[in-house]
Amino acid sequence: MSEDVDPKLSAMEGAGFYNRYSAMQAAGISRILSLWATACESVQIGEEPLVIVDYASSQGRNSMAPVRMAIEKIRDRCGAEKLVEVIHTDLPSNDFSSLFTALQQESDSYLHETLGVFPLSIGRSYFEPLLPPGRVHLGWNTWSMQWMSRKPADAPDHILAGMSASAPVIAAVKEQQAADWRHFLTLRAAEMRQGGWLLVGYTARTAVETGWEWLLGELWASVQDMGRDGLFSEDERTRMTIPIGLRTLDDIRAPFAESGEFSGLRIERCELLRVADPHWDAFQQTGDASQLALRQANGIRAWSGPTILGLIDPLRDREALANDLFNRFAERIRSAPRRHEPYLAVALFRR
Amino acid sequence: MSEDVDPKLSAMEGAGFYNRYSAMQAAGISRILSLWATACESVQIGEEPLVIVDYASSQGRNSMAPVRMAIEKIRDRCGAEKLVEVIHTDLPSNDFSSLFTALQQESDSYLHETLGVFPLSIGRSYFEPLLPPGRVHLGWNTWSMQWMSRKPADAPDHILAGMSASAPVIAAVKEQQAADWRHFLTLRAAEMRQGGWLLVGYTARTAVETGWEWLLGELWASVQDMGRDGLFSEDERTRMTIPIGLRTLDDIRAPFAESGEFSGLRIERCELLRVADPHWDAFQQTGDASQLALRQANGIRAWSGPTILGLIDPLRDREALANDLFNRFAERIRSAPRRHEPYLAVALFRR
Repeated sequence: MSEDVDPKLSAMEGAGFYNRYSAMQAAGISRILSLWATACESVQIGEEPLVIVDYASSQGRNSMAPVRMAIEKIRDRCGAEKLVEVIHTDLPSNDFSSLFTALQQESDSYLHETLGVFPLSIGRSYFEPLLPPGRVHLGWNTWSMQWMSRKPADAPDHILAGMSASAPVIAAVKEQQAADWRHFLTLRAAEMRQGGWLLVGYTARTAVETGWEWLLGELWASVQDMGRDGLFSEDERTRMTIPIGLRTLDDIRAPFAESGEFSGLRIERCELLRVADPHWDAFQQTGDASQLALRQANGIRAWSGPTILGLIDPLRDREALANDLFNRFAERIRSAPRRHEPYLAVALFRR
Repeated sequence: MSEDVDPKLSAMEGAGFYNRYSAMQAAGISRILSLWATACESVQIGEEPLVIVDYASSQGRNSMAPVRMAIEKIRDRCGAEKLVEVIHTDLPSNDFSSLFTALQQESDSYLHETLGVFPLSIGRSYFEPLLPPGRVHLGWNTWSMQWMSRKPADAPDHILAGMSASAPVIAAVKEQQAADWRHFLTLRAAEMRQGGWLLVGYTARTAVETGWEWLLGELWASVQDMGRDGLFSEDERTRMTIPIGLRTLDDIRAPFAESGEFSGLRIERCELLRVADPHWDAFQQTGDASQLALRQANGIRAWSGPTILGLIDPLRDREALANDLFNRFAERIRSAPRRHEPYLAVALFRR
């Protein structure tokens, strides 16, 4: 998951990005990249420079491989001189300096040993129009669309809005997620050229399970533990709701259900993958449950920590309370370790 | 002048930006804006979205008025629905978050009460290609091109490279400034559309004076004072050279001298203006020399402070030494106040 809600705070957990990245690499990424290759091979392109948009780029670490692949595939088709614009978008508060610096300096940068590739950025929510109509050949967006554009309800019984058992909360989440999804697709469709392709991948669920029951159940149990110890009031525990919902493939396909088309987009593929636990093999070898617990807890903290911190009263010692929470969480994992393998939906659209 | 050399440090002197801005407003800006209006009225534009590039944008504060003017002029010509892309460029370390946040939130933002305007940014030196060929209709660049792309020599006798009396230093500066200017124009020309216009304005000099003799003479005298007090060694004083040179109008016109054209660009206008001292009227009224001195010293510190700090050995207490230097500088101004009215060259190019 991503730092979409408040990247200013999330910069604090920056070290966690790599965990997230590895988790994705370990399983979903090869399948995602093969779908992305299809997009790169199929996109219509004329004499104009290729325009790739990386929606919700964060600091660009996860974008290097797919952007490089797109440049290579298109240059295989159009010649090595093909000019390319790469536009990274994220919220205004995103650290674009880190992105541009990494592009210049790091050896895995897609600029490394290439010419005629022009990176740009846009600091604006992707729930607004980002570019003039018809500008985009290829769009890439991963690990962000599970975040809602706003929190439609507090869940009194879970840390994740979409995992509440409360019927009104679930209804509000479903409505928000449906509206956000249609809004996102409508805006992206307008920005895409005729013949352009868009890949969207984010954590999702089956009809019967989310894949996050165990791990986020333990995180919520840790919040409850702190409630019992008098550290979080009932109000505070209710407010502690991460604005994430989990869509099923049917939810993802819903806008296309009637006519097979939505806003001029067609779904080419829509699949649910299982993301392997990147820490499990090491645990099998070492039996070190403390290490596994720390890695899993930090992996969760990388995307949820800033939001959780922001939900604690700023007049309290938020840092200490968040540390306490994640220590309890790690201890719960350590005492009964399991494999954590969430679902990832990947959808491929063509205009 | 701008924060081009090290914006990471210059963020520390951010409060000074406003001084710089007011200084420009007070005199040159109205003439610059009338030339800019000519560009906006003359640029060739078809069905495609208008592309405005703000080269060396810093945090965008100085770009709001010219960009808004360009949008209004073009929409007067093409209709209120005309789509516009505005691309702000600066070094990778520039604070683009502040720029995007100001664009969203501030009432003087050119996004305020408009639709169909799309801001982007590029974090890359303008001594590299920034965009594919032919992308730009209108280019705007002010208060940055006096900075050299590198320091070609240390001046043993002045704080500003271009104000040294040493023949080898002056030769090296002239060569670097000439090369930078041709390089900048060549890159910009390639990015411009046929029929596009570019405005460039920066502090410059006449054949006989720079306009900075008094104020930067006092700053250099303050460095020498600190040398006499054993605070800066001779080596340190020599190294303390700001990589700025001052071109004459002939220098600016030089690439065009032979054929009237350079890299497909033609000079439409090239003028030298005098920038009024924005603090002088208040001083005339109050007679408060301390206030004048503080304002003038801070105005200089806003653009030079970060560079000067970076030139002091990091193992020393740089902050304290820089404070001492600017206190001495202010005291020199206070004891013999004068009006400071530097020159500003404005050149307008058409492709």
